[in-house]
Amino acid sequence: MIRIILVLVGLLMSLSSLADKLPPKTLGVFVYPHFELLDVFGPLEMFGSLPDKIKIVIIAEHPGRVKSDQGTAIYAETDLQHAPHLDYLFIPGGFGSRQLVSDKAVLSWIKQRADKADLVFSVCTGSALLAKAGVLDHHRATTNKKAFQWVTEQGPDVQWVKHARWVEDGKFITSSGVAAGTDMSLQVIARLYGMKTSERVANGAEYIWNKDPAKDPFAIK
Amino acid sequence: MIRIILVLVGLLMSLSSLADKLPPKTLGVFVYPHFELLDVFGPLEMFGSLPDKIKIVIIAEHPGRVKSDQGTAIYAETDLQHAPHLDYLFIPGGFGSRQLVSDKAVLSWIKQRADKADLVFSVCTGSALLAKAGVLDHHRATTNKKAFQWVTEQGPDVQWVKHARWVEDGKFITSSGVAAGTDMSLQVIARLYGMKTSERVANGAEYIWNKDPAKDPFAIK
Repeated sequence: MIRIILVLVGLLMSLSSLADKLPPKTLGVFVYPHFELLDVFGPLEMFGSLPDKIKIVIIAEHPGRVKSDQGTAIYAETDLQHAPHLDYLFIPGGFGSRQLVSDKAVLSWIKQRADKADLVFSVCTGSALLAKAGVLDHHRATTNKKAFQWVTEQGPDVQWVKHARWVEDGKFITSSGVAAGTDMSLQVIARLYGMKTSERVANGAEYIWNKDPAKDPFAIK
Repeated sequence: MIRIILVLVGLLMSLSSLADKLPPKTLGVFVYPHFELLDVFGPLEMFGSLPDKIKIVIIAEHPGRVKSDQGTAIYAETDLQHAPHLDYLFIPGGFGSRQLVSDKAVLSWIKQRADKADLVFSVCTGSALLAKAGVLDHHRATTNKKAFQWVTEQGPDVQWVKHARWVEDGKFITSSGVAAGTDMSLQVIARLYGMKTSERVANGAEYIWNKDPAKDPFAIK
């Protein structure tokens, strides 16, 4: 009996050490001209703190400099066609999304990559792109409260939630405006790697994490 | 008497409209390899929402791609020598600051630009660079709480504050770690343009602003 227990313990330890040695998952961030700065960098601060678990790839229609709505430019490493397989697909918001809802090539890429991804998440008006691509049909989702009407028009078959810091529905996690994306990202980390890891990441960034998806001071009354 | 009042009202209205037409102030952000993402982009989300008031310039020793500690790269427009006059100087933190405290050219540039600036602010270990450059001597300042000992060693003549989300001392405003910089930036905006403007910026980003510099959950016990 003791021998069986020892074998089982050994097996569990090997599996656990194997899990630590798994290659990192790929998180693809789709950026575009006039994306919103904090939509991207709040989440990337958090996901970027786990380089052994998550490899971040910045993807754009045209690689190189991509200017944010605030002016500062990010560097996109690859284009849509050459992006590797994405375990996690992340679509940020920003004024640029208003043009992109008419861009069939981008929407088709988003749909294909979302179908293959284990997790799909958006910040702010990023959910307009997911909705217009048909990714969120019949799922619950949220978005920026100031752009609520325009975003919801992009997805009439989505179950839009007016009061939520973020909404989790299966593999789809959509956050409210801009800064809400940072709270949501920590929830994604908690879901993937446990609450202890997520709290360690938040504390490391001295970030006062709003852990409650129902606490939404910016909700539409 | 009525005529005098009308003339005075007219004069005040012209002055107010003149203030609206003043050229924007220049905010220079010094970035370096292994800067911390959110140290830079939390503040830039907020300052970047006021393009008629603030022009942001990203400065680095070597312009072009500058990689953050999280991997994602920012684009720096100019080098130290060619940077324009900076009304506001902003020094973010990050692991890269550990090397830069030995870089005399960078420290000398920081000192010169800080002397000429109307406001100087830092996030996280950015205050180590200000301290080592001699900018903060005999002033109150704070920094990241996890790097407190190392940072404070860079400026033995600085009055380091252990418990503070941020510290304001004359034209110097230093924040605690990473995310604290976003709270501090909104205070800088309130100081420059009034609380209403700052609240509008925070609400636009759906940011739950910790307005109280004494509320520091990450302080050293």
